[in-house]
Amino acid sequence: MTTRADGRADDELRPITFTRGFTSHPAGSVLVEFGQTRVLCTASVTEGVPPWRRGSGLGWLTAEYAMLPAATHERSRRESVAGRVGGRTHEISRLIGRSLRACIDLAALGENTIALDCDVLQADGGTRTAAITGAYVALADAVTWLGAAGKLSDPQPLSCMIAAVSVGVVDGRVRLDLPYEEDSRAEVDMNVVTTDAGTLVEVQGTGEGATFPRATLEKLLDLAEIGTATLFEAQRAVLDEPYPGELPTE
Amino acid sequence: MTTRADGRADDELRPITFTRGFTSHPAGSVLVEFGQTRVLCTASVTEGVPPWRRGSGLGWLTAEYAMLPAATHERSRRESVAGRVGGRTHEISRLIGRSLRACIDLAALGENTIALDCDVLQADGGTRTAAITGAYVALADAVTWLGAAGKLSDPQPLSCMIAAVSVGVVDGRVRLDLPYEEDSRAEVDMNVVTTDAGTLVEVQGTGEGATFPRATLEKLLDLAEIGTATLFEAQRAVLDEPYPGELPTE
Amino acid sequence: MTTRADGRADDELRPITFTRGFTSHPAGSVLVEFGQTRVLCTASVTEGVPPWRRGSGLGWLTAEYAMLPAATHERSRRESVAGRVGGRTHEISRLIGRSLRACIDLAALGENTIALDCDVLQADGGTRTAAITGAYVALADAVTWLGAAGKLSDPQPLSCMIAAVSVGVVDGRVRLDLPYEEDSRAEVDMNVVTTDAGTLVEVQGTGEGATFPRATLEKLLDLAEIGTATLFEAQRAVLDEPYPGELPTE
Amino acid sequence: MTTRADGRADDELRPITFTRGFTSHPAGSVLVEFGQTRVLCTASVTEGVPPWRRGSGLGWLTAEYAMLPAATHERSRRESVAGRVGGRTHEISRLIGRSLRACIDLAALGENTIALDCDVLQADGGTRTAAITGAYVALADAVTWLGAAGKLSDPQPLSCMIAAVSVGVVDGRVRLDLPYEEDSRAEVDMNVVTTDAGTLVEVQGTGEGATFPRATLEKLLDLAEIGTATLFEAQRAVLDEPYPGELPTE
Amino acid sequence: MTTRADGRADDELRPITFTRGFTSHPAGSVLVEFGQTRVLCTASVTEGVPPWRRGSGLGWLTAEYAMLPAATHERSRRESVAGRVGGRTHEISRLIGRSLRACIDLAALGENTIALDCDVLQADGGTRTAAITGAYVALADAVTWLGAAGKLSDPQPLSCMIAAVSVGVVDGRVRLDLPYEEDSRAEVDMNVVTTDAGTLVEVQGTGEGATFPRATLEKLLDLAEIGTATLFEAQRAVLDEPYPGELPTE
Amino acid sequence: MTTRADGRADDELRPITFTRGFTSHPAGSVLVEFGQTRVLCTASVTEGVPPWRRGSGLGWLTAEYAMLPAATHERSRRESVAGRVGGRTHEISRLIGRSLRACIDLAALGENTIALDCDVLQADGGTRTAAITGAYVALADAVTWLGAAGKLSDPQPLSCMIAAVSVGVVDGRVRLDLPYEEDSRAEVDMNVVTTDAGTLVEVQGTGEGATFPRATLEKLLDLAEIGTATLFEAQRAVLDEPYPGELPTE
Repeated sequence: MTTRADGRADDELRPITFTRGFTSHPAGSVLVEFGQTRVLCTASVTEGVPPWRRGSGLGWLTAEYAMLPAATHERSRRESVAGRVGGRTHEISRLIGRSLRACIDLAALGENTIALDCDVLQADGGTRTAAITGAYVALADAVTWLGAAGKLSDPQPLSCMIAAVSVGVVDGRVRLDLPYEEDSRAEVDMNVVTTDAGTLVEVQGTGEGATFPRATLEKLLDLAEIGTATLFEAQRAVLDEPYPGELPTE
Repeated sequence: MTTRADGRADDELRPITFTRGFTSHPAGSVLVEFGQTRVLCTASVTEGVPPWRRGSGLGWLTAEYAMLPAATHERSRRESVAGRVGGRTHEISRLIGRSLRACIDLAALGENTIALDCDVLQADGGTRTAAITGAYVALADAVTWLGAAGKLSDPQPLSCMIAAVSVGVVDGRVRLDLPYEEDSRAEVDMNVVTTDAGTLVEVQGTGEGATFPRATLEKLLDLAEIGTATLFEAQRAVLDEPYPGELPTE
Repeated sequence: MTTRADGRADDELRPITFTRGFTSHPAGSVLVEFGQTRVLCTASVTEGVPPWRRGSGLGWLTAEYAMLPAATHERSRRESVAGRVGGRTHEISRLIGRSLRACIDLAALGENTIALDCDVLQADGGTRTAAITGAYVALADAVTWLGAAGKLSDPQPLSCMIAAVSVGVVDGRVRLDLPYEEDSRAEVDMNVVTTDAGTLVEVQGTGEGATFPRATLEKLLDLAEIGTATLFEAQRAVLDEPYPGELPTE
Repeated sequence: MTTRADGRADDELRPITFTRGFTSHPAGSVLVEFGQTRVLCTASVTEGVPPWRRGSGLGWLTAEYAMLPAATHERSRRESVAGRVGGRTHEISRLIGRSLRACIDLAALGENTIALDCDVLQADGGTRTAAITGAYVALADAVTWLGAAGKLSDPQPLSCMIAAVSVGVVDGRVRLDLPYEEDSRAEVDMNVVTTDAGTLVEVQGTGEGATFPRATLEKLLDLAEIGTATLFEAQRAVLDEPYPGELPTE
Repeated sequence: MTTRADGRADDELRPITFTRGFTSHPAGSVLVEFGQTRVLCTASVTEGVPPWRRGSGLGWLTAEYAMLPAATHERSRRESVAGRVGGRTHEISRLIGRSLRACIDLAALGENTIALDCDVLQADGGTRTAAITGAYVALADAVTWLGAAGKLSDPQPLSCMIAAVSVGVVDGRVRLDLPYEEDSRAEVDMNVVTTDAGTLVEVQGTGEGATFPRATLEKLLDLAEIGTATLFEAQRAVLDEPYPGELPTE
Repeated sequence: MTTRADGRADDELRPITFTRGFTSHPAGSVLVEFGQTRVLCTASVTEGVPPWRRGSGLGWLTAEYAMLPAATHERSRRESVAGRVGGRTHEISRLIGRSLRACIDLAALGENTIALDCDVLQADGGTRTAAITGAYVALADAVTWLGAAGKLSDPQPLSCMIAAVSVGVVDGRVRLDLPYEEDSRAEVDMNVVTTDAGTLVEVQGTGEGATFPRATLEKLLDLAEIGTATLFEAQRAVLDEPYPGELPTE
């Protein structure tokens, strides 16, 4: 018996789509959609690395997350106009960067930087997990681009795939991939970042106004495994298509 | 004989498209494309007006323009991270706000604010004129929304249509709707904002490293008239379709 | 066989001390020490609540975390001088606030705010978990103060105790309460916030350069349970002593 | 029949004065007055150029515009105290820089920078056009100074003179050089920057609450030509006097 | 025997001039000159007081000090562009405010604020003492203006006059009113703010790289008394002239 | 007859204590207490000097002062969160730096910097003078550390001792070392920084709402001499103990 507002089963993802080559300037550019949540994830390659890393011979990967002002139901204030990046934005940017650095051998890039930008065009819950999942696809495209440009010392610097999903307890039920309507009233909210090798990269679970027993944590992790398995399939399917655009020639 | 890199005649616009209802939260949401230049223009309605306008009974219209970091060929720094909005951004935001305020009777809104957000997803020259042209369509949708919500004291507060186009002198030739490749080496660069009544709202012409005789100004204005005539047709065509989404009921 | 540099067993906490009444202005003021990590946790009561909460009749609890410049081995730049709070600081401040809000009935405070300030005087790993654990004791004192001042509608607004500990994988071994020397080279790093009722408030686990199987997550959670059990005992012991200072009279 | 509050004809400028050597530290220092509008324009020479221009062998010219807090009728907030430069300030600073770069051969300066500072001591409309017109005189003095110091590879790097004037439609009449009283209620407001060779550098026309036909634009440009012709005469007259101060010896 | 570069005796001031009504918008506007040091001091009257003083029935007086970028020998960076007010600027602004609040009965103003702005047009040492001395004259004019406007509950709210002067030890000699050339190499530097009743408002003495015996302090204070006596005469002389401009009628 | 709230004679200091080695990372770390005022003063050694001093062969000494939010009776806002350092903080930081630079031969350090951080844990008046007095002890320890590390070209770069005390007029009586209760209602407030050679480094006296005759200044200086004599004894006594911690070996 289904009880979710959108008719999904508790362990069912929203429709997932990836549009590669959504814009054409960056080496990777993917519009990822988890239902109504839509995030533009780009991977730009720039020469050089941050000052603290210069001379190391190693590359770097950094990430920035942001919301367009009209992405949310009520328009939110533009952070550039406010003159500072908010705490939530900072936190998610750091999470995306850490998560994607887990799958890449930065030594293979030489002293080049990949900048991942995840800009939420429309928010309906799960923006950070959609961002991570879409950023992986953009990163894979950027790696293909770097390889074609002859900038990789190792032809395959990605050691695994990365995907993330939100899980939570809503109305006392453990559920996968929460939309805003569920997320905003969830008792427990958890984001899980995993690899296609079955290992965990990051687990962040929070009781919202409530606390939760460890048994709940286990159920949430089970559900996240189901969800990310489907996401890896979707990533693989879309990455089986050729690079969307023109590749550089060495 | 055509000499433009993209095969256009000197007085020809790039392909223009408007996608209404591109996102669903704001009252108006339009993706406008001038060739490869793509700008998401949203019009959000919020209750209340800025402090200096409170108690006037009048509404307000404000605009903010921004570029996604990967919208340009070389990734640019995110202004929220830099902690300040740059001069160019400020200038264009002000231009968009002034231009659209020229067509609306703010008294009809009561003390409500329409916030126009123009976020450049991909930049290929003419982002500010595309933004104004797209913002008009988003504004028209927001006005429809306000009417359905019973928030308008005058059922048709828009007195005219607004469109804008760039013109310039490139390779010694007067040309319409410059892409980045032409814009970056133009000798004269001009942005013209007009109404469908044939009047001017704003004219901004600049010699770039060169100065220009008044005769050139005249030719540029002639060309801008040709361009905006086509843009008004395109706006009318797309606005003939019904409101893309659900309207509020009073 | 012990292999830790400081001679501890893998499942052993560093020496834990709480000094209540460390300073005398705020309603709660606790110096917490986890070995060489020393954090001053204060709980200040102020009248009123943030604007978005006014008129609700509910109180609020907020938290700010910071490091003194000389708290770390290499002096770090003062964030007030830099003109912005860093991402890590933001993230930890938010974590502390969420964690402590999990144990308090904010309705009982009326429209008053408790501000928790956690300033790290000396850092040697685990500053955020020490801060949460110490902040609970400061909060308990502030609640006592509020009760004496006749400002509580419910005499016992704390529903449970809160403590936090770090766990991680170092040199391939699962360990409790990592000092800097271990933390800086941990393969997996996890912070666990729990209640004395045995439930979880927050779990944040991160692979650092590595990913980890779910079995490791389980072992880390087991260890965190052992650690927080000891922390709750220490909190109870110190809170059995009378309020350190003069209480207001109603 | 005169209808202007200050008794001027529609095509008449306010009294214009330039005081060269108003202060003595910068290489050029000119107090320009357009009636009650008074702007201190200085041109400072500094060694080196911005990072993005280093190694080019070319010089640079930059400009900053600001208002003293008490320059306006109502005291305005100091931008340094606000912590950010406002949009209007940014826009005018950029306009001044562009306008003056149109007359100078930056290659002749070597890697040196001329910084133009235009500080409004008293505002009565037309501050930006007064600033540009005064800045040209300060720039001419700085060029003389640079020549005396032996820092110019080309003895005359200025290819033309630059002056600017505001024109507008007030009470339905096309008028030259608007004071605040007219500017604040103008239907159309235009700033025109020209060279003494009769060419245009920048044209910025805006309908304020109204739009305007192209015929009005033509009349405004005619009037601006009349105004700048007088300004060039005044600049020439004052620059015929010797350099006000001591010149460096090579 | 005179040893000072500008020919003055050790106990001699530079030529002092006050130009009242230097600009016309603010209630008081005085250009003060101490030799080559020139500071524009304005006193603007605004309705209302800062939030923390509302409802007190008392007025307020505040001060802001700033330097134009080209006021110094080497152009200095504009603080609005830097995005923050420097420590020295802050310190002097606070000093000016404190000094002038010493002579005025703020109760007589009702809930109105006098904002003193001291903008250095040209700096040659002693800018803060010139600013205080000039600000007193601007303040006296603003008080006259307030009286004419019928906004004073006490017709004479100024209880004394305020003047300030710098003194120092240069080349082992105790000297009055140091220009930049002396100030920059002074062994001891002192700023003294006094009333015409012979009392002190503020004394700030600093050894610069050296320390100084109390006997030197005494000599410096003697010299400051001589200097301020002359400044009070000059202030009185200029204030004997009528108010420079039109006074409001009640 | 004693009239002070805390039972002290007018010329009596509060109990003074110094705790060396209060924290262990910085080369000098001293908790100084003047009664209830408690300031943590650290001296951190870092390689290199600010850009404007590079290549000079000289070292540098800088200071930063700050208050913890809960140090004052009413919690104050954190300056890092406000995004800017306040005027008072700036002013005191500069005073501490100047005062301590008076006793050290910076040439002896080579191009190394000593950063003094004075963080007020609890404020009860006189925080800046306590900070200076404690910072001297921390500096002396840092110098010992530098000597042991073989980084001093002159084994004793400190030419004198530095101590500071506040004096003031309260209830018409001249008093030493004012606590907050006296400081907040003092008619005259003065901070005096001296050397143990009997000379002055800095004198800052301010009338608070009142002005004061020179005779009062003399009495205040007499009292400050008495106070600093006792402080020098206390500094000497504590510095007679060995360095609190492990010294580097060259």
